[in-house]
Amino acid sequence: MTQTDLLSDVRRPEGDSLRDIVDRRHLTATVEWLDNHPPHLIADELARMDAVDAGMAFRLLDKDRALAVFEEFEPVDQQRILAGLRDQSFRELIEGMDPDDRARMLREAPAKVAKKVLAGLSPRERRVTAALLGYPEGSVGYYMTPEVVALPRNLPIAEALQTVRAKGATAETVYTLPVVDAGRRLIGVVELRDIVLARPDAMIAELVAAEPVSVRATDSAEKAARLMQGANLINLPVVDSEDRLVGLLTIDDAVEVIEAADSEDMARQAGTAPWQGHYMAAGVFQLARYRALWLLLLLVAATLTVTVTNFFEPTLEQAAHLALFIPLLIGSGGNVGAQAATTCVRALAVGEVRVSDLFRVIWRECRVGLLLGCMLAVVGMVIGSLFVGTKIAVVVGVALIIICGWAATIGGTMPLMAKRLRIDPAVISAPMVTTLVDATGLIIYFTTAKLVLGI
Amino acid sequence: MTQTDLLSDVRRPEGDSLRDIVDRRHLTATVEWLDNHPPHLIADELARMDAVDAGMAFRLLDKDRALAVFEEFEPVDQQRILAGLRDQSFRELIEGMDPDDRARMLREAPAKVAKKVLAGLSPRERRVTAALLGYPEGSVGYYMTPEVVALPRNLPIAEALQTVRAKGATAETVYTLPVVDAGRRLIGVVELRDIVLARPDAMIAELVAAEPVSVRATDSAEKAARLMQGANLINLPVVDSEDRLVGLLTIDDAVEVIEAADSEDMARQAGTAPWQGHYMAAGVFQLARYRALWLLLLLVAATLTVTVTNFFEPTLEQAAHLALFIPLLIGSGGNVGAQAATTCVRALAVGEVRVSDLFRVIWRECRVGLLLGCMLAVVGMVIGSLFVGTKIAVVVGVALIIICGWAATIGGTMPLMAKRLRIDPAVISAPMVTTLVDATGLIIYFTTAKLVLGI
Repeated sequence: MTQTDLLSDVRRPEGDSLRDIVDRRHLTATVEWLDNHPPHLIADELARMDAVDAGMAFRLLDKDRALAVFEEFEPVDQQRILAGLRDQSFRELIEGMDPDDRARMLREAPAKVAKKVLAGLSPRERRVTAALLGYPEGSVGYYMTPEVVALPRNLPIAEALQTVRAKGATAETVYTLPVVDAGRRLIGVVELRDIVLARPDAMIAELVAAEPVSVRATDSAEKAARLMQGANLINLPVVDSEDRLVGLLTIDDAVEVIEAADSEDMARQAGTAPWQGHYMAAGVFQLARYRALWLLLLLVAATLTVTVTNFFEPTLEQAAHLALFIPLLIGSGGNVGAQAATTCVRALAVGEVRVSDLFRVIWRECRVGLLLGCMLAVVGMVIGSLFVGTKIAVVVGVALIIICGWAATIGGTMPLMAKRLRIDPAVISAPMVTTLVDATGLIIYFTTAKLVLGI
Repeated sequence: MTQTDLLSDVRRPEGDSLRDIVDRRHLTATVEWLDNHPPHLIADELARMDAVDAGMAFRLLDKDRALAVFEEFEPVDQQRILAGLRDQSFRELIEGMDPDDRARMLREAPAKVAKKVLAGLSPRERRVTAALLGYPEGSVGYYMTPEVVALPRNLPIAEALQTVRAKGATAETVYTLPVVDAGRRLIGVVELRDIVLARPDAMIAELVAAEPVSVRATDSAEKAARLMQGANLINLPVVDSEDRLVGLLTIDDAVEVIEAADSEDMARQAGTAPWQGHYMAAGVFQLARYRALWLLLLLVAATLTVTVTNFFEPTLEQAAHLALFIPLLIGSGGNVGAQAATTCVRALAVGEVRVSDLFRVIWRECRVGLLLGCMLAVVGMVIGSLFVGTKIAVVVGVALIIICGWAATIGGTMPLMAKRLRIDPAVISAPMVTTLVDATGLIIYFTTAKLVLGI
């Protein structure tokens, strides 16, 4: 795009029509043209262009002006613009763009337009289209239903029921009815249940909860879904950045989001790339591909263990029996670390632990690890004395205590550190902790051996 | 109890009153007495006893007779019996019993009684009480709400709405209305939405779905919750073994069940005992206790690695450099095994894989493992030749391929085997697979070394 921009900047005569500029896919000039013309002229120009081109120019308008322009259209042109935004070739156009041009195209769309573009689409189509309205994958906008029956505040119950009857047939749910003001701003929510149970002469305003729980369309869908779970909500109103109602997140989509997030966390915990497909439907190469990256990274990280063992080779030569316990020691350390990591990843995911708990978690896990280490040391020393002498058994015991304390601390801390660095904590997988503990565990083991055995 | 039974069998005179027999906590004699008397006499006797004793005798009646007796009571006595069943001392009585006596007491209660005992209780109380009605922990009965607005089939819409208004205030939800016949048997389900949107002169029968989805109160709650998730249901009717309506499982409870099951699976995958508490609220000893058992078992299992390394000590002495790669090899094997295990445990949990897929899973995972092994072997050989000679590098490469193939096969197969043996597949934790692969991996490594190096 940038090349084209430069070229056409030179060639562009004054007074070019919007159509010509858009034809040349000249984004900067298009934005400039749109900024310098009033809504009714823009609407006139867009009405003459083909649906995809008009859609492109329309998505470059900023949010407030987009709505003004949209309202200038004749209804038939509104439909054409919306059709253009849904068009396959519009999608392809955007997918083919430079990332920053694409970002410019995909700013949040005005609530009214977003709702109309998404209405009547199947859930699958809706998700593909959501991205074109500025709702990224994994956002609430990506999962919400735009077909909502909204009620004005000053409505008697009897009329509210009539509104539900008139508009409810196409809505995905009518059990939660958002209440909005004249500007479509969310005031509150009424449950259909309350309307059915209320006195017929009551007003909607009497039933509205004062502080409506709502989320932004650009918020994380997982966070919204867990909010619904915590508050036992079956529907959650979704608003844009100006608190205008754009849709509802329904509980069945929320459950889907939570389950996908849990599957993803589990996959990550095992060092597999997250993946939405069906296990039996995936090919062998596909399965391998999702597991390969982490394995390679972990193998390279495991080179540390080779370096460490290489460094301590003199110690190993003087007490060859030390080699017998390498798998047992690093295995136990890995297990303790993996337990701590998985526990903390899950506690973070369900909101039991916050990043600010970092030092408390370090202190708890350190003690838990040492406690477990002491217990394992007793058994480890028995095993050690059965195979080799008491001296090496003592080395094994002491090393187990230190390794377990260290492994639990590392395992519990890393997910919190990741979250503080805005990385998904589930990336701190059990295999990652295990590999890290392997190398450090060997250092602890050999150093203990040198000190205890005096070599 | 059995001792008391024997003693009182000798002492019991003919014509003893029910009250005397129950006073002596003589279960067999109580059942015998109940079997030999008609419902109205039983009701008379129970009405004279204190609430807890009457409750005990009542729970020993078989299901059909229990309902007959219950209907013989005056309303005030019905309330007393129900109060007795809810009483703390009744719970303690049952908890103190022998397991088989307890089982006899906790046969499924009749739907009507179950509904009345559970009605009006808080969710927490309801769960404690559910067990007393024959619904074990983790069953649907344990989570369902008994307060349901059920509709008869032949009802005009207008009257149905009146029923909802009259009875809906105490129900947890009125969005799903089960339709029942005269014997409270479930015929189908109507959504409140459909009632609101229907013509006022329509009949309920027109709106009922032909094949209602329902579950038994004794079914697994997790299975029921996943069914709701799959079918996008917000409420699921619950019936007893005779298809009589006893309650509804609501989506918020279903989400709670699914999340608890996922947390449990994740904990198990990391080799921790499943546990429902809050991470930050648990004490250090408590946390350690939940992790200790598996660590100890795995440590004892890890003794295998000591035995194997001990057995191959001559090989290790002849090529000391082999020790350098032990952590790297068993680490990679463990990672591949853990990936396969976690993937298969999750695929089983969400229903993507069935036990009958065993051989297909073995064949897929074996190929995935070999593929990953070949990839890792290339990197492993490079690392090997950097630290030691080409020969040992070849040993490392060949061993990696075999170990990865083996690890993926074992990791993918064990959860399915566990499920076939009716063990929770999530018990096949990543640490368990890792420990198993550690020992067998060492055998593969040292045997490869002996063959390649000719020692």
